[in-house]
Amino acid sequence: MFDPRITKLADVLVRYSLGLEAGDHFLITGTDLAAPLVREVYRAALRAGAHPEVLVQLEGLAEIFLKEASEEQLRTITPLQRVTYEEYASRLAIQAPRNVKGLSGVDPRRMAIAQEARKELSAKLMERIGRGGKYCVTLFPTHALAQEAGMSLADYSEFVFEACFLNEDDPVAAWRDVSRRQQRIVDFLNETRELRVVGEDTDLTLSVAGRRWVNADGHVNFPDGEVFTGPVEDSVNGHIRFSFPGIFQGREIEDIRLRFEDGRVVAAEAARGQDLLEALLGTDEGARYVGEFAIGTNDRIRRFTRNLLFDEKIGGTVHLALGASYPMTGGRNQSAIHWDMICDLRRGGEIYADGELIYRDGKFLIDP
Amino acid sequence: MFDPRITKLADVLVRYSLGLEAGDHFLITGTDLAAPLVREVYRAALRAGAHPEVLVQLEGLAEIFLKEASEEQLRTITPLQRVTYEEYASRLAIQAPRNVKGLSGVDPRRMAIAQEARKELSAKLMERIGRGGKYCVTLFPTHALAQEAGMSLADYSEFVFEACFLNEDDPVAAWRDVSRRQQRIVDFLNETRELRVVGEDTDLTLSVAGRRWVNADGHVNFPDGEVFTGPVEDSVNGHIRFSFPGIFQGREIEDIRLRFEDGRVVAAEAARGQDLLEALLGTDEGARYVGEFAIGTNDRIRRFTRNLLFDEKIGGTVHLALGASYPMTGGRNQSAIHWDMICDLRRGGEIYADGELIYRDGKFLIDP
Repeated sequence: MFDPRITKLADVLVRYSLGLEAGDHFLITGTDLAAPLVREVYRAALRAGAHPEVLVQLEGLAEIFLKEASEEQLRTITPLQRVTYEEYASRLAIQAPRNVKGLSGVDPRRMAIAQEARKELSAKLMERIGRGGKYCVTLFPTHALAQEAGMSLADYSEFVFEACFLNEDDPVAAWRDVSRRQQRIVDFLNETRELRVVGEDTDLTLSVAGRRWVNADGHVNFPDGEVFTGPVEDSVNGHIRFSFPGIFQGREIEDIRLRFEDGRVVAAEAARGQDLLEALLGTDEGARYVGEFAIGTNDRIRRFTRNLLFDEKIGGTVHLALGASYPMTGGRNQSAIHWDMICDLRRGGEIYADGELIYRDGKFLIDP
Repeated sequence: MFDPRITKLADVLVRYSLGLEAGDHFLITGTDLAAPLVREVYRAALRAGAHPEVLVQLEGLAEIFLKEASEEQLRTITPLQRVTYEEYASRLAIQAPRNVKGLSGVDPRRMAIAQEARKELSAKLMERIGRGGKYCVTLFPTHALAQEAGMSLADYSEFVFEACFLNEDDPVAAWRDVSRRQQRIVDFLNETRELRVVGEDTDLTLSVAGRRWVNADGHVNFPDGEVFTGPVEDSVNGHIRFSFPGIFQGREIEDIRLRFEDGRVVAAEAARGQDLLEALLGTDEGARYVGEFAIGTNDRIRRFTRNLLFDEKIGGTVHLALGASYPMTGGRNQSAIHWDMICDLRRGGEIYADGELIYRDGKFLIDP
């Protein structure tokens, strides 16, 4: 049976997250499993006066391409790909996989060749999106995602719709409210010079002086709920133990503990996946520095579901990413990776801003 | 279970029908129900050195577009559409509908507006395809197609694979053989001036003098099996009764009888659908003239399945189309429609070429 919350989701995405306007050329990408949401978004986009197009990723094609293409084929940018990079700065990407391990048999070096060939086009697209593009990543519940979360599809769908505020009468109003509350946190943190995070086996200090905090309020990710910045690269000191496994391209690293000196990871241990952890840190010099520090604020996301779009927003957690910074934060770290890991502060965790306790047990103590 | 004949089908399409070569930019279109065939064609295209792309038509989007778009939206050619028209003269279109009546609630005038806006691009594409493009229409069995044929999906799949010669050890060799046999018929008919078709309630004469016959041997349609031309426009005289319903955009007209004088339909009757028949004849002046006369030759297609791709190839039938000619035949009739109707000659039908009996009971009496 069609769930009317899918129509609500489409409405929030088109009106709030993307803010589509008449005349916009707009691209929806997703799998055929997302068809119910694709149809509603497509309809809402038409009603907004936009010109929607849909690119459906058919299960198995990416795997066939990455396994069978010659190097020349891997590097070739087709006319169809080029037009999507060059003409569609308004986009909705819908995650709706049939199998989250679908590319696990692909040689990562071949994947890197294909990515490298598209780097320039991809960077230009990101630049255009940065200059007022309309871009959002969301997901549509599938069995594969539910299984990864350890849930039935029915339960997982409830979890997703609740995290998106779709049980509210007016989800757009609810997200505007989130945005206002988070903005007060952002305004406060923009005046902060130094943060200290204290938790189980964790005591980390970092400078955010002169860096900009971003209010992630449902525009680029949906659902959303975090505030983030890029810390001063050589300022990170101390140690941190991550509460959830770090996941890199579907592979898990368990119980990661890192020690930083002047911004650089000087010790890294994991209960499982030590090899991969070291390989990641060895990607390039920037992979040993923090590119993002963030605080998750979505209290309707309470459990880890092995999907970063949700996990990094869990209310009461912080996460940091090794590797590339987001330029809009003022962060300058460069790397081929941007890899997020999450630390749960809901039981006894604390954050100090310039020495003042502002956050305890996963809640802000300041006004918002 | 995956049917290995799908891989054989992909191989025939890529190697024989399309003849893909290294460097070709190649577009596959179809629905998600065609995924098993799309994957095999995609793989075969990569192995041929081509650069395949896939556009999946998601059920319902065309209906939403045609029902909800403003006139301006109906007319807008998006960047994505433009690139498929301008850059992809190599294409495989796979029919694999979920519901053959999916557009039955759409206002035909709105459909015409969208088509009209794309006429120029479409004509240019057809021109490029004519100059050595690689273009083929095929289908992949779905419940909707099976239901329309009055069959189970299992039985329908057997029917389709048999019609495509996929039970042969070497289908490509079998199609090459079809091509050679048909070429002898084409060579004979190219020397013929006048044809007379005699059957139940049917006695029709038409001139084909100076017109070219085309050997439809599995390149543009797959499966295939017919020879066709555009008769001299004002030469058609006599009467014909069609054995199967005429189908126009999913609507059926039963037991159609036409009378021609000097090429023009001067009387038209149907047991059911008279209104639609008259509306079609009234489309434009060209809609009252024959644009195509053809003889179906695929003896593995014996039943009417309400799908023109198969029906017009039934071995032992002839069909004629009212409306536009195919320019490569030398036919000059112009019309917004090209509408095929089929006459069964398997029981007592005859064809005379310049007075000589060359075909009886659905079989050629001449050498092939």
